[in-house]
Amino acid sequence: MKRQIRILGIDDAPFTFSEKYAAVIGVVMRGGEYLESVLSSQVTIDGTEATAIITEMIQRTRHRTQLKVAMLDGVCLGGFNVVDINEVYEATGLPIMTITRDKPDFEDIKHALKTHFRDWEARWKIINHGVLHKIPTPHNPIYIKYVGLSLPETKELINVSTIRGVIPEPVRVAHLIASGITRGESYGKA
Amino acid sequence: MKRQIRILGIDDAPFTFSEKYAAVIGVVMRGGEYLESVLSSQVTIDGTEATAIITEMIQRTRHRTQLKVAMLDGVCLGGFNVVDINEVYEATGLPIMTITRDKPDFEDIKHALKTHFRDWEARWKIINHGVLHKIPTPHNPIYIKYVGLSLPETKELINVSTIRGVIPEPVRVAHLIASGITRGESYGKA
Repeated sequence: MKRQIRILGIDDAPFTFSEKYAAVIGVVMRGGEYLESVLSSQVTIDGTEATAIITEMIQRTRHRTQLKVAMLDGVCLGGFNVVDINEVYEATGLPIMTITRDKPDFEDIKHALKTHFRDWEARWKIINHGVLHKIPTPHNPIYIKYVGLSLPETKELINVSTIRGVIPEPVRVAHLIASGITRGESYGKA
Repeated sequence: MKRQIRILGIDDAPFTFSEKYAAVIGVVMRGGEYLESVLSSQVTIDGTEATAIITEMIQRTRHRTQLKVAMLDGVCLGGFNVVDINEVYEATGLPIMTITRDKPDFEDIKHALKTHFRDWEARWKIINHGVLHKIPTPHNPIYIKYVGLSLPETKELINVSTIRGVIPEPVRVAHLIASGITRGESYGKA
């Protein structure tokens, strides 16, 4: 696999619950090395349009035909605004994966959804869909779901785009931008 | 000079004159390769506080002690909100340079200042201060001013931080972020 493949990394900005929207940042990188473009959008906090927003972000970028994969920092943006990666893949044809540093606690998530959302079952169904894979790295493992790729392809894409630590550069850089524009200085890890 | 030196690149976001403020983005990079942090602030369009804003951005970042130099995309942010790089250097101790792709037309600038600003002389004095250096590159030349550095050091800093084209990565990346968060997709060149 060429190290120069184009990857779209996506993360959302931190927010407080007094706000209505959270910023969503996309970055197009060649492998893990060269930033080509920055995309921005927003989602309603705890809303239901994150799938549509990500689909639109992928469809509208002038880098669309060059992109090989999209990587999301987790399956939710702006709280519990859930991204249905299968729907995004069907609509765009672009393979997509979610990456998290910590193993999601699905029982906790289900409980939170039940407590806060009348449509909790619809959100839960998307979050719970698909197989969560534990991927070993030289450091801690990461947890991923993917669509439109084989497991070996997924691992290779993560491998070519990770420079330091365990998070691929496009996701790490999207996180730095999203937190930096919101808080004045970026902080924490994707 | 080590390729891993920390450089702060700064650019402002595009704006329309119906807006009052323009976003200012700072990025901390190791050489031209690795993004470490994203900073954000804002300046009043055609205001007079850009020097104070840049001084504060440098002073407040937790990367301050690692930084070797700041690079600005030109001498103005948010229209004609002029950055006095000598004042920033005196206040922060951090060497600083301005970089432009095109040779500034100082007569045009002076005319625009005279037309639009009662305090045009104060702005002009800052813009006109110091020597503009034409720096050859493998492509087109760039135009710089600097303070706190020698000319050979300045050239070396530009050299180690430029990957493609003529604009050092920290400035190029700051430009991509500033335009991407404002317009939905980054465009154009720093």
